[in-house]
Amino acid sequence: MAKLLIRDLFRNEKDYIDKSITISGWIRTIRSSNAFGFIEVNDGSFFKNLQIVFDANLDNFKEICKLHISSSITVTGTLIATPDAKQPFEIHATSLVVEGHSSSDYPLQKKRHSFEFLREIAHLRPRSNTFSAVFRVRSIAAFAIHKFFQERNFVYTNTPLITGSDCEGAGEMFRVTTLDLENLPKDKSGKVDYSKDFFGKETSLTVSGQLAAEAYALAFRNVYTFGPTFRAENSNTTRHASEFWMIEPEMAFADLNYDMEVAEEMIKYIIKYVMDNAPEEIDFFNKFIDKGLLDRLNNVVNSEFAKISYTEAVDILKKAPKEFSYPVEWGCDLQTEHERYITEEVYNKPVFVKDYPKDIKAFYMRMNDDNKTVAAADLLVPGVGEIIGGSQREERLDVLEARMKELGLNKEDYWWYLELRKYGGTKHAGFGLGFERIIMYITGMSNIRDVIPFPRTPNNAEF
Amino acid sequence: MAKLLIRDLFRNEKDYIDKSITISGWIRTIRSSNAFGFIEVNDGSFFKNLQIVFDANLDNFKEICKLHISSSITVTGTLIATPDAKQPFEIHATSLVVEGHSSSDYPLQKKRHSFEFLREIAHLRPRSNTFSAVFRVRSIAAFAIHKFFQERNFVYTNTPLITGSDCEGAGEMFRVTTLDLENLPKDKSGKVDYSKDFFGKETSLTVSGQLAAEAYALAFRNVYTFGPTFRAENSNTTRHASEFWMIEPEMAFADLNYDMEVAEEMIKYIIKYVMDNAPEEIDFFNKFIDKGLLDRLNNVVNSEFAKISYTEAVDILKKAPKEFSYPVEWGCDLQTEHERYITEEVYNKPVFVKDYPKDIKAFYMRMNDDNKTVAAADLLVPGVGEIIGGSQREERLDVLEARMKELGLNKEDYWWYLELRKYGGTKHAGFGLGFERIIMYITGMSNIRDVIPFPRTPNNAEF
Repeated sequence: MAKLLIRDLFRNEKDYIDKSITISGWIRTIRSSNAFGFIEVNDGSFFKNLQIVFDANLDNFKEICKLHISSSITVTGTLIATPDAKQPFEIHATSLVVEGHSSSDYPLQKKRHSFEFLREIAHLRPRSNTFSAVFRVRSIAAFAIHKFFQERNFVYTNTPLITGSDCEGAGEMFRVTTLDLENLPKDKSGKVDYSKDFFGKETSLTVSGQLAAEAYALAFRNVYTFGPTFRAENSNTTRHASEFWMIEPEMAFADLNYDMEVAEEMIKYIIKYVMDNAPEEIDFFNKFIDKGLLDRLNNVVNSEFAKISYTEAVDILKKAPKEFSYPVEWGCDLQTEHERYITEEVYNKPVFVKDYPKDIKAFYMRMNDDNKTVAAADLLVPGVGEIIGGSQREERLDVLEARMKELGLNKEDYWWYLELRKYGGTKHAGFGLGFERIIMYITGMSNIRDVIPFPRTPNNAEF
Repeated sequence: MAKLLIRDLFRNEKDYIDKSITISGWIRTIRSSNAFGFIEVNDGSFFKNLQIVFDANLDNFKEICKLHISSSITVTGTLIATPDAKQPFEIHATSLVVEGHSSSDYPLQKKRHSFEFLREIAHLRPRSNTFSAVFRVRSIAAFAIHKFFQERNFVYTNTPLITGSDCEGAGEMFRVTTLDLENLPKDKSGKVDYSKDFFGKETSLTVSGQLAAEAYALAFRNVYTFGPTFRAENSNTTRHASEFWMIEPEMAFADLNYDMEVAEEMIKYIIKYVMDNAPEEIDFFNKFIDKGLLDRLNNVVNSEFAKISYTEAVDILKKAPKEFSYPVEWGCDLQTEHERYITEEVYNKPVFVKDYPKDIKAFYMRMNDDNKTVAAADLLVPGVGEIIGGSQREERLDVLEARMKELGLNKEDYWWYLELRKYGGTKHAGFGLGFERIIMYITGMSNIRDVIPFPRTPNNAEF
């Protein structure tokens, strides 16, 4: 079935040199004289363009000379090595068929466009160098994640997106409904009657698959989710989107140390896999997007991640020869400025901070023996701050129930989650990695809107 | 980092025989006398159980004898080959630590439960043989799909789930909103004011990523989606869920024939990959769920799929020595009974039916030269009927606009979709595969609720 891709030429040059081949793609640049011309064509399979040389011997030479950028063409010709040129080879065209014309008002002309402008043409921006690289890397990184977990026998688990519980507690949720908002059914007390809604009750979009993943970890031992997650928070930052993808591994017979081991191994694996499989893209990002990128990625792959306790982190921050906008006291949540100081200025490598005060962490995290901290660990990385949040989960039914009571949570809402502790519960742990966060980290892109094909943010659901 | 899994023992037996090893898992069966006992333990990494022999030399022998099914344990002992027994080896325990107790009211006792009952304990059912097999196969099949496309250089594209358009036209949609339903904002005319909603307009959950995938195919040449999709249809069948996963490849410079080639190769690849990587599970399904399964799967892998036109299909059905509930005339949609007759009784292998009447297919499908049919192809398979729907897309701007006008569609709603044809459009094609459909096909499970971890259907969003 295979059709020849431009990637094949670059990756297996020797198989094609001096042979007649046919490729298709879109014109990135075109220039011509009366006698001959050059086209750089890109088919999306590879970051780099392929140079086409065409001349007046072609019947449609004049038509070709008038082609606009982004026209689609199919070219047959001989692949000629060009050892003295900047590109390794070029095609001398014997036929050039125009598949689809473009137009002089094509918005992606060969000049630098702002990322803001390119967001307005999100349907066309993957044709630009930057976004071609970003979204190819996104795809490769996604596969690296699946490969990492599948090789280790983790079962990929699709936890539900529509949820009837608001128990996940990780943030504001979107409501999902089929009720007619112009004509809402009401119950006797005049409230909206959700028993008439599609699912017979109130439903929302999930903010985390973790609780469901725990059920599957207690059957399959090692599982992971990799799917969309939603936050209805009205925060317009460069790091938050309303719809994003999360990876949530969950492991039975695992404690917090093991959790951190897997997280470290996974981060290194993803980065290494992308560096090995998208070297042209990483090179581009390093040159044009983030000059320190390659050093930073190599540093992550080759470092042993540091591990310190929250209490140690607070000590470090209090002694820091630096003024923070938010002062630090034991018990407070760490801000990005604190996280970055620790990982960038103190350690200059990734750092796990563990054993956080229970009051700033979720109810399901395992209580430590000090009864003040929980077995949670966040991974901080230079240039970003927190990239992973994980914890050992509370497997002791009585401790969990006591903690839920303390927080005013309703046991009945969690009946099945509690049963997991009743019927062969075991120590288990997991973590969450925001997929877009790691893509931003690997590419150096600084706005989450630029690593999601069609991003959703407050007041924006275009395309 | 690796901890020993029961799968490792079964797959690499020789590395462990006569060695002292440690494994963890959940008790599936336990029986004991005064002097010794047997436990079958499963850790979720492998379909089969591992037998543990324990005796009164263990300090906690009496405690062990009282353990309930589903208790979690960690066992250390020597792995002994048992060539004369039905299992290949067993562990002679030198230590057995109870990680978590279970209870006598554990609902999954060792007897046959109905699938209906097991749906009510969806948090525990993956611990049963059937669902352990189903969800391991689901994970393996998902990876096969990623592997197939990544090996062929398709770019994995995450198209948005929340959509501001209702242009996809594939079915009823769920509304997504953060408006307070008890206190809806109204505009001057008394209608709900969606400009106050989270995205500043009406939004829904997507029914297909295809239109967005087309934009990416026209940049990357070959792309695929693999993500959740939603239908708010109030249909309680064994084959429809409100939330399910879809795979939607989209290829530029590709016609309908190429589309069918890729679909055929993909289906064979997925099935073969699962058969190679989950032989114990497939064997179980073949014995206990669907007796003809293995023959059916082998038949698919080894057949060349048939290709007939819709017109030929109608001729075959009209001449069939069989009464159908729905009579067939050229122009009507084929029903499952028709599809199954063709694929099961006429061809006894998978069949592509192509070139459907334009009036029963979507607006974006490419018009054939007869001006009556479109370049669509559905794949029908024995035992199920339709499993894939695909088409070549209309790339000719004028033809597409004329067709949209005919159908009363609003050009402005599709501005970016139309621009894809204006700026270097090219022939392109794609198809959609319902992930749960292929899982049902590979496992022989007959209800879609039993191949989704926590299914969502009308009036059901439990867990």
